Amino acid sequence: MELTGVIPPVPTPFDRGEPAFGKLAENIARWNRTGLSGFLILGSNGEPVYLNEQEKLAVVEKARECIPDSKAMLVGTGLESTRETVRFTNLVADLGADYALVAPPFYYKGSMQPKILFDHFRAVADDSRIPILLYNVPQFTGVNLEPTLVAGLAEHPNIVGIKDSQGNIGQLNETIYSTDPEFLVFVGSAPVFYPALCIGARGGILAVANVIPELCCDIFNLFTKNSHEKARRLQNRITPLAKAVTVKYGIAGLKAVMDTAGYFGGQPRLPLQGPDPEVQQELDRLLRKL
Amino acid sequence: MELTGVIPPVPTPFDRGEPAFGKLAENIARWNRTGLSGFLILGSNGEPVYLNEQEKLAVVEKARECIPDSKAMLVGTGLESTRETVRFTNLVADLGADYALVAPPFYYKGSMQPKILFDHFRAVADDSRIPILLYNVPQFTGVNLEPTLVAGLAEHPNIVGIKDSQGNIGQLNETIYSTDPEFLVFVGSAPVFYPALCIGARGGILAVANVIPELCCDIFNLFTKNSHEKARRLQNRITPLAKAVTVKYGIAGLKAVMDTAGYFGGQPRLPLQGPDPEVQQELDRLLRKL
Amino acid sequence: MELTGVIPPVPTPFDRGEPAFGKLAENIARWNRTGLSGFLILGSNGEPVYLNEQEKLAVVEKARECIPDSKAMLVGTGLESTRETVRFTNLVADLGADYALVAPPFYYKGSMQPKILFDHFRAVADDSRIPILLYNVPQFTGVNLEPTLVAGLAEHPNIVGIKDSQGNIGQLNETIYSTDPEFLVFVGSAPVFYPALCIGARGGILAVANVIPELCCDIFNLFTKNSHEKARRLQNRITPLAKAVTVKYGIAGLKAVMDTAGYFGGQPRLPLQGPDPEVQQELDRLLRKL
Amino acid sequence: MELTGVIPPVPTPFDRGEPAFGKLAENIARWNRTGLSGFLILGSNGEPVYLNEQEKLAVVEKARECIPDSKAMLVGTGLESTRETVRFTNLVADLGADYALVAPPFYYKGSMQPKILFDHFRAVADDSRIPILLYNVPQFTGVNLEPTLVAGLAEHPNIVGIKDSQGNIGQLNETIYSTDPEFLVFVGSAPVFYPALCIGARGGILAVANVIPELCCDIFNLFTKNSHEKARRLQNRITPLAKAVTVKYGIAGLKAVMDTAGYFGGQPRLPLQGPDPEVQQELDRLLRKL
Repeated sequence: MELTGVIPPVPTPFDRGEPAFGKLAENIARWNRTGLSGFLILGSNGEPVYLNEQEKLAVVEKARECIPDSKAMLVGTGLESTRETVRFTNLVADLGADYALVAPPFYYKGSMQPKILFDHFRAVADDSRIPILLYNVPQFTGVNLEPTLVAGLAEHPNIVGIKDSQGNIGQLNETIYSTDPEFLVFVGSAPVFYPALCIGARGGILAVANVIPELCCDIFNLFTKNSHEKARRLQNRITPLAKAVTVKYGIAGLKAVMDTAGYFGGQPRLPLQGPDPEVQQELDRLLRKL
Repeated sequence: MELTGVIPPVPTPFDRGEPAFGKLAENIARWNRTGLSGFLILGSNGEPVYLNEQEKLAVVEKARECIPDSKAMLVGTGLESTRETVRFTNLVADLGADYALVAPPFYYKGSMQPKILFDHFRAVADDSRIPILLYNVPQFTGVNLEPTLVAGLAEHPNIVGIKDSQGNIGQLNETIYSTDPEFLVFVGSAPVFYPALCIGARGGILAVANVIPELCCDIFNLFTKNSHEKARRLQNRITPLAKAVTVKYGIAGLKAVMDTAGYFGGQPRLPLQGPDPEVQQELDRLLRKL
Repeated sequence: MELTGVIPPVPTPFDRGEPAFGKLAENIARWNRTGLSGFLILGSNGEPVYLNEQEKLAVVEKARECIPDSKAMLVGTGLESTRETVRFTNLVADLGADYALVAPPFYYKGSMQPKILFDHFRAVADDSRIPILLYNVPQFTGVNLEPTLVAGLAEHPNIVGIKDSQGNIGQLNETIYSTDPEFLVFVGSAPVFYPALCIGARGGILAVANVIPELCCDIFNLFTKNSHEKARRLQNRITPLAKAVTVKYGIAGLKAVMDTAGYFGGQPRLPLQGPDPEVQQELDRLLRKL
Repeated sequence: MELTGVIPPVPTPFDRGEPAFGKLAENIARWNRTGLSGFLILGSNGEPVYLNEQEKLAVVEKARECIPDSKAMLVGTGLESTRETVRFTNLVADLGADYALVAPPFYYKGSMQPKILFDHFRAVADDSRIPILLYNVPQFTGVNLEPTLVAGLAEHPNIVGIKDSQGNIGQLNETIYSTDPEFLVFVGSAPVFYPALCIGARGGILAVANVIPELCCDIFNLFTKNSHEKARRLQNRITPLAKAVTVKYGIAGLKAVMDTAGYFGGQPRLPLQGPDPEVQQELDRLLRKL
């Protein structure tokens, strides 16, 4: 199984504030009938910061039941402390995760110099029983994994790729050409999915792929077949919705538009709140246009 | 007991990676012989993000044993989820905390609009059994509690103050004059302690007070006696060390210089690492100058 | 004549787009009857970027006629090129300027390293026939004059002070205590005028002093008489207007509220435009409250 | 003559601080023998902020003599004041400029709201005798021309395109798909030239094209022939030098490496200074690798 193509960062569904495992199963069953290559569980869109450890493990377990072996299961496992990150990564490895997606520690931003991050990620990679993808998401963490740092980490045999969600194509390009071609670079920002493929990204882990998985896969397939002009046009069609569900309206917006698209979205956990009626209408309008 | 004066945000000591409760007790015993007004446990300098819940509660319990009733015990309790924040706040209330210091949820920065933060803090305040101080520390959270938001929250009877560590005196001043004089505004940035007192802050929660508690209390007392010129000069004397242990070298720097000053500092938990030898020398030099 | 106290950065009045010298004379005549210590001509509030050189010199000449010898005339002379800055500074020196206020070159921000700025300012100071004050205004220039740079420049005999408009009291304090007590540090941000005096600023160059010169001088005088509490309260009274005329509504707002206060404000030059009616009303309301 | 392909932003050569017109002519003569589509005179790399008006006009006049009618001459004409921008634009129109490249006014950043910029650019376009390209370069101006603003301005018949130098491909893409296909969108950031072409840019105005014009034209031609993989590889080859001459070492670096490449670079005007020896060596090394 080569990791490539389109992967959705799966939201965790809640019913009256409690994880709704049945809804998760239904969503995955439906996504399984599309061209998606795999699933990211407990990524940022999975609200892991609002789940306790027991809940997180239950979500992973349920997801594994629903995901066929032909599709990869990535699980977000980054925590602030090095040893807790190792411990939690191996717990999800035991539950069948194929890859761990590891965000950097970030609370003490000013102290997260390259050396600290380098040692942290290598320590996690040393002790993790599954391969690791780095997770660069400075819009949430305030810490940017610079291409030179990533290039250094990419030499570790157990650090096999990165999800890069900072949408700057220049930086993404540096990350790609300063690492080995085998290193799995996924873009995490749907509005630049097509240009990211142009510069050599292996695929995309895209929030909007929860809602319109086929269209996202179409972009990937058109690109693969060298149909650049069609890929570009399709990118432009999906960009407004892609921006709305990530940058503008966050997880609440993503869940709301999933409901409209026939998946179960539901409410996020507090402190997040569902979108205002006008936001809901705008999201529905953007979806209908597609 | 009126909350005023100087309060240190107590670091959590570790011995070979494990919480060193005896060292914590020794430190507090020594601080008890100074003019400090109270203690903040599990503030940012307490490395709470590297402790599991059991460890956190054990630290609070030990601290409460060591802190006399005449001095306030504040405990940092802010977590990402609303209900987890309530739950944890009431656990530390049961252990004898006098006040909870509550940082905002912040992972989904873009979604933390004023309304979300307002509802979150009010929900926590409604259900907390102890009074709450807001904690504004955008250098770590990336979320700034604007004066208008703070003014709105200050009307809740169980939200009694704020620790404002964002260092901008203009914003601090707005927070002070847009809230009731009873609202307890503490500055959390030692390099502007004296000017913060000038504009009406009630006191300071200052990392450097772990190292030089008496000098920090002297600034406060000089100010109280209207000895502005002396207070200003003393502020200037301590500023270089104050900047070094917070902005420049973080918790590792603070712990290193505590060791030099005769307290137990020790190593932070991984991924944080102790300072380089040159940093240690610079810190020691700054301390000796005082 | 010792440079201290309150100085307004005088706006350039326009009548149908042309400099209105008579109105300038009337404004200065009125300000002369207050406690203001001097005047800044062609500061940022003077719209120098919208004047050609001939217009600038005519404004300086007219201002000099109106300003008595007992009050200092400072003139903004910083340009991008080193030699143009020298040339223009000496032109205004010939017209009787007492001090030149020199902003850094800033278009090529990324190239304005400390060494470049150091050499530039020293070259200007070497060849200027009048003493120089540095002008730090990163909100317009995007270049911050760091305290260490200022401290180095302050050793030049012809660099005698700084107007620091960057509003951060911590940085201002570093600038003050890392320079000689003779070095003239003026704060350029009215919302922090009182705390700036507390930490040792010599005075303020304040946009709002164009509108309410007496109240600004009162803060200074109360501070000088050690009436801290009264100074603090007066600061809080003027802060909302001070913020409105600088941060929120810029020069157009300043000119609009000058008209209401009985000075001639008039319209700024294009591309700037006069404020909307609601802004005008808010400004008038803030003024009336004083 | 359709505007497309690669255009260098020509540096202004100086000899002992004075414009070196003969050197300018020699450089252009050599560039004329390459596939470059045109020239930008007095762009940011032309140091216009260090030239007085007479010097600027002399540079334009000399350039026009040297540039054949088959290649476009663009001239940077944006100034702070609306009427000065119009006046200067028409002066260069009289000297034979084909297009004016107009940067926004930016000194009073906080006041440059969309309406102010919209009215400014439309007023300039109304009165300019040559067509206008907008110039978006927030790294120097601190003002970003948002896609919605550009889309509104693109409806003016005399505003025919944009040079967008903020290297974010997501924003560039929005600008492209929210304007008419006839609107001429040039990317101004060489490290993202190839991905910019992928999303629909018409060409590039690239500092590094002063040094390696053929390689830049090759990327464009490979893209046009749908040789994506070769274009991408060539992009990666030139990116290190492209970054060095713009982001890292600015105009001084660009001029230094032009000297190495056999063009006349020379020194920039003060306050800019030529590069340190190590920088020169690094630049030469990057050039030799090509």
